[in-house]
Amino acid sequence: MAVVIGVDAGGTSSRAVVATLDGHVVGHARAGCGNPAAVSASHAYAQLKAAIDGALAGVDRGGVVAATIGLAGIEAVTAELEALFPVPPQVVGDVVVALAAGTPDPSGTVLIAGTGAIAAKIIDHTIVGTADGFGWQLGDEGSAFWLGRQAARSAVRARPGLLTELVLKHLGAHDHEQVAVIAQAAPPLALAELAPLVSQACEEGDPAAAEIVERGAALLARTFHEVHEPGTPAVLAGSVLTNDGPVRRAVRELLAPSAPVTAGPGEAAAAWLAARTVSPEAPHRAFLPS
Amino acid sequence: MAVVIGVDAGGTSSRAVVATLDGHVVGHARAGCGNPAAVSASHAYAQLKAAIDGALAGVDRGGVVAATIGLAGIEAVTAELEALFPVPPQVVGDVVVALAAGTPDPSGTVLIAGTGAIAAKIIDHTIVGTADGFGWQLGDEGSAFWLGRQAARSAVRARPGLLTELVLKHLGAHDHEQVAVIAQAAPPLALAELAPLVSQACEEGDPAAAEIVERGAALLARTFHEVHEPGTPAVLAGSVLTNDGPVRRAVRELLAPSAPVTAGPGEAAAAWLAARTVSPEAPHRAFLPS
Repeated sequence: MAVVIGVDAGGTSSRAVVATLDGHVVGHARAGCGNPAAVSASHAYAQLKAAIDGALAGVDRGGVVAATIGLAGIEAVTAELEALFPVPPQVVGDVVVALAAGTPDPSGTVLIAGTGAIAAKIIDHTIVGTADGFGWQLGDEGSAFWLGRQAARSAVRARPGLLTELVLKHLGAHDHEQVAVIAQAAPPLALAELAPLVSQACEEGDPAAAEIVERGAALLARTFHEVHEPGTPAVLAGSVLTNDGPVRRAVRELLAPSAPVTAGPGEAAAAWLAARTVSPEAPHRAFLPS
Repeated sequence: MAVVIGVDAGGTSSRAVVATLDGHVVGHARAGCGNPAAVSASHAYAQLKAAIDGALAGVDRGGVVAATIGLAGIEAVTAELEALFPVPPQVVGDVVVALAAGTPDPSGTVLIAGTGAIAAKIIDHTIVGTADGFGWQLGDEGSAFWLGRQAARSAVRARPGLLTELVLKHLGAHDHEQVAVIAQAAPPLALAELAPLVSQACEEGDPAAAEIVERGAALLARTFHEVHEPGTPAVLAGSVLTNDGPVRRAVRELLAPSAPVTAGPGEAAAAWLAARTVSPEAPHRAFLPS
């Protein structure tokens, strides 16, 4: 039986799926962060290996006819990583996988907000332009990191209210000044963990959280519009935009004229892209039922 | 001969001075970063030791009657550090030393902008309130780090002009996208090294740099006004505010009604504070001639 492998190597987790050419899943596994731009290459490799080996467990490796791996940031893949696959993998940007996770159309705009944030214009499965994606230090505006940093900024300035209370509690800080000390001592990206607190506080009516949500959504919409051409498909991806919450709702409202659709699992989209390389008519709806 | 030691442990360098009670300098030395909040404790200790030992070279240690050390951030000093001094040192915040570096008045407001940025209200050589000083991740608005990060943000967004050219050249980046990659890979505080490029580009008329200078100065003035009481002395300290340049000029203009004075060397101020502990009438103008 001919099967394909799809892998989505994200900042939070790595997910792999093995599916038949008509989209029937025969193996699935997930592991930790497999993005070599976010963690050490050896850690990323070990996580990707765990996900791929897990998905291939119980599958006849001789049947694997194609593999696609979606990687954020650095797309160079070493021979070591290629050796994990029974066939040479196709490596594409995570934004290409994200577009395919929302639409069978080979062209369109994808807006991703997970730990980072980026918008990409894609034509025929190829990136032709991006906006933001500059990393936590210089950009990623509206991302989970950005939202979390705003929450910490609000708390360290002792802005009264639920958000500050939630941040102090989450960090185990006794007072506002300790927030700065704890934030400085932690790895920079740890601030992304505070993002859900912004959503929680916003839902409960905290004005500081509502302001952060509004600004974050506006920044994400601006990033989207830097590359989007009206009339082309628009896909929302990444945890901030695929999980229900105030940021997702605000962004959907701002982008309503572009009728954005929500991305499904990236690994399924990667498997569909792999299937297309051997079977151009592989049905998108079978890999990504909506 | 009775002498005192003053030490200023800054984010960029550690400086120590040995002086007589009437302010005559008999030893002086400087070493690298001695701020245990910015580098490892062992590195900070080694730099402080180098500066202190250097200043004491050729001085009869038996004559040392007082020592004052000004430390940013964490003011806990281990027994190991105390053992470097012939007498138990008085440890004070770097903001207390900075005020004394500008005025003999025991009370007033100091605004520091170096690698970080903080304002402090001091009464009788004791900190009674601060503004900002939240570190590069959550604050330090208008600091060298902040200025440098704005420069990198401008460059990665390909804002045309001299500032972008200078940043690309400084980082050895071939194009704008590389700026994000290089910034992500470097230690976060390395962005502070780009601050002088903002001043340079601003002096040569670059609009992007002028905008960063104007915003940075406004943020520093806001931080100052959060704690300043009109009618009390105001002191400007830190490399951004003591070296000539557009940020210093803009801040001086904004704070003109408060008639701010510029801080002299912190180590001399620390030596004066040490001298005061044994000779309350130690002349400020002898330690810090203006």
